[in-house]
Amino acid sequence: MSPAAPLADDLLPMREACVQAAREAIAEQGLEKLSLRDVARRLGVSHQAPYKHFPSRDHLLAEVLQRCYEAFADALEARQRFDDPAADMESLGRAYIRYAVGNPLEYRLMFGNDWPEAAEYAEMYRAGLRAFDVLRAALRRLYGKGVPKAKVDADAMFVWSSIHGLVSILQVSCCDHLDLATKVEAGLADHQLGMITHALRAASGASGAG
Amino acid sequence: MSPAAPLADDLLPMREACVQAAREAIAEQGLEKLSLRDVARRLGVSHQAPYKHFPSRDHLLAEVLQRCYEAFADALEARQRFDDPAADMESLGRAYIRYAVGNPLEYRLMFGNDWPEAAEYAEMYRAGLRAFDVLRAALRRLYGKGVPKAKVDADAMFVWSSIHGLVSILQVSCCDHLDLATKVEAGLADHQLGMITHALRAASGASGAG
Repeated sequence: MSPAAPLADDLLPMREACVQAAREAIAEQGLEKLSLRDVARRLGVSHQAPYKHFPSRDHLLAEVLQRCYEAFADALEARQRFDDPAADMESLGRAYIRYAVGNPLEYRLMFGNDWPEAAEYAEMYRAGLRAFDVLRAALRRLYGKGVPKAKVDADAMFVWSSIHGLVSILQVSCCDHLDLATKVEAGLADHQLGMITHALRAASGASGAG
Repeated sequence: MSPAAPLADDLLPMREACVQAAREAIAEQGLEKLSLRDVARRLGVSHQAPYKHFPSRDHLLAEVLQRCYEAFADALEARQRFDDPAADMESLGRAYIRYAVGNPLEYRLMFGNDWPEAAEYAEMYRAGLRAFDVLRAALRRLYGKGVPKAKVDADAMFVWSSIHGLVSILQVSCCDHLDLATKVEAGLADHQLGMITHALRAASGASGAG
């Protein structure tokens, strides 16, 4: 093998190398500047090489997003489990916040932009849906059998958006200027999860879950 | 006056023209590309002209943000008022959602990025704080006199972040792929506000506000 051959080709299949280079490009320059040409340049391969694996920039982006959703869903599945369904819901919320705070770039990528839209991105949609279904499953356990799908869906959207909102606010700096009482900021995650628990309990007719 | 004089100088003071041009530049190209040089180009004035009013790009951005927060706080203050404090809280939530959905660019600008940080931007911080204080005042009315500031602050953060999360999710397209039950999406705002009301009521010891 020639010593001049591109390193990435030696170490990883080209498809994997493209995904990795795309993540680096997004981290450094933002999503808007992602292009197959830039990915090729980063890998030291011809402009055409990435096109053998990804027909367009959006196909590559969909693959990056799919990996993000899979890792995210795995992290949610790997939460500490509790027999008590309400404690398990809170644990899920904690796992969500921990993942988002620990992976801000991936988090913004998953939830801060429109998804690329095309039937070919079915695998990406499936991975995103899997993450959401972790939450739906936890809610079904909380409410018990026979709960209508519309209730699970509506409450899943409430839980998700409430946690997403807190995570998004924590990722920008504006809290620093809101004159919050001491210790409020440190307790935000606990308080948010506690309020979500209150709301779910009230919405389930105070059936005493948890 | 010479007919070759720049139009913007004729119609508006330069400071106002810069703010307007900055908003247009952000709308067209995103926040990252905002520069005083580009603003000058848009106004057809010399590169130096904007510097007479704004020492830096961040000073101009802080002024744009300040206007956004003022308009936002005005919209919250202009909500439909109710004697019942719980109904007033929901009305505030509705006014928030309406403003965010109707002004997506301004909304993203206010809450999707770090604030420029410097003591000189005190007016911007004050405008942002005024919007947050509308929410704190509504909560104090809900809870009654003597409620600790820490409780108001923590619950204000809960209400704000829960509504912010929903608004942020509605501004991207991922809901379309979550296999939500029919009508859930149309009812998201009402459901979110209802769940927030549940949580506030439970957190205030079911004191029956509203």
